[in-house]
Amino acid sequence: MKVWLLDNGSIVIEHTQLMWNVPGEQVRIPVYSVLVEHDEGLFLFDTGFDLDHMNRVLPFELPERTEEQTIPAQLESCGFGLGDVTAVVNSHLHIDHVGGNQLFKGTDVRHLIHELELAQACNHEPFEFFGYSDKSWDYEGANIETFSGDEFELAPGIRILHTPGHTVGHCSVLLEGEQPMLFAMDVAYTATAMERGIQPGFHHTPVDGVRSIARVKQVAEETGARIFYSHDMDEWRGYRRAPEHYEV
Amino acid sequence: MKVWLLDNGSIVIEHTQLMWNVPGEQVRIPVYSVLVEHDEGLFLFDTGFDLDHMNRVLPFELPERTEEQTIPAQLESCGFGLGDVTAVVNSHLHIDHVGGNQLFKGTDVRHLIHELELAQACNHEPFEFFGYSDKSWDYEGANIETFSGDEFELAPGIRILHTPGHTVGHCSVLLEGEQPMLFAMDVAYTATAMERGIQPGFHHTPVDGVRSIARVKQVAEETGARIFYSHDMDEWRGYRRAPEHYEV
Repeated sequence: MKVWLLDNGSIVIEHTQLMWNVPGEQVRIPVYSVLVEHDEGLFLFDTGFDLDHMNRVLPFELPERTEEQTIPAQLESCGFGLGDVTAVVNSHLHIDHVGGNQLFKGTDVRHLIHELELAQACNHEPFEFFGYSDKSWDYEGANIETFSGDEFELAPGIRILHTPGHTVGHCSVLLEGEQPMLFAMDVAYTATAMERGIQPGFHHTPVDGVRSIARVKQVAEETGARIFYSHDMDEWRGYRRAPEHYEV
Repeated sequence: MKVWLLDNGSIVIEHTQLMWNVPGEQVRIPVYSVLVEHDEGLFLFDTGFDLDHMNRVLPFELPERTEEQTIPAQLESCGFGLGDVTAVVNSHLHIDHVGGNQLFKGTDVRHLIHELELAQACNHEPFEFFGYSDKSWDYEGANIETFSGDEFELAPGIRILHTPGHTVGHCSVLLEGEQPMLFAMDVAYTATAMERGIQPGFHHTPVDGVRSIARVKQVAEETGARIFYSHDMDEWRGYRRAPEHYEV
């Protein structure tokens, strides 16, 4: 498998959102998507945020995203177009992970979402309002399919792990191979948070979050996978970014 | 019933603890207990914090408590001694609600705790460590009894309502009478938080917290009870404090 990390810009959040109940300075965090070329298709995990929506609903998060950081531009840098993508998988349906879904309108892309996440986004808790405020993933004609359960094999070597806590249907992604990669997604935002077992301040069920942090660590240990963090600026600066890629 | 609010000092917390995910300045909050004289006995709800423990474990919360703000001194100001108390009921077993329990060592006071809270405090989540760090409520010889379920009538007109979220076995207290009083305890720390439906940043199960906020509001509406807030400095300044009292 070839794997590209697609830069989707950045936003600013409170430190207590980065690490629940840990005070500190506000922090600018990266937002990115993951593109996987596999024998069975081209898979895109998450789609960043929609800049217009962010500026309208959460302007205080100071979103920054250039034209080069849009999904089409990032795909193009890797030699692909929107129509080449087989399936878009959202780790969860929060605002900074679904913003580019609507760009696939008119293609025959499959949108894959954990069934619990889809249900929750449609009927969420009041405290999840901002997280689920971008509903454009449900665009007219969207070909949405759900998967369920604790684990789902998208294709040989691509394992989607249900890791709830941050949201009800949150998922992480394990890519198996000689150099396995584990995308923890929002189980913990940063390497430090993962190490210290601290989940994001924005969450649905922290008790589940504790179990998911433990699961990610265990899977990484069992498989020897390198954990990639969703919102860690220091880690992000050290990652290969599209058009550079990883071989799994 | 006669009701006294016993001043137990104050601590400083982050604004995101006062209101989950709402940033702002640190805030000094009051800590107090509730003493109820009833035909069936003298009941004490919560016992404040232990100053030595706070200074040892959470010195950054800058605890302030004078000698006049201890449980014995507060009881004395109302004409009572420790030995006059029939039962101590803890709304939950967090550090700022149990600190004075150990002072009842040597008396035959009954300690009443929701069974779920007792179990949780003995086997809590890692993120609850500081909250449950004062275990001195389990002093040698403590006469601990549990109650269970959604509601428990301690004595005629004293209804203990299970209102989980902040903690698993958290309870609020309704005193019924001509001028009913509803002690929300830590369902929401302040009047503003209750109004806006925002629970504390330190919590076990926020989904339950949403339901408990709704329950407190509904009970207040149905009974006409005035809601008293556990950690609202502005409200606290307007309350009658021991030795002044309320008649229910």
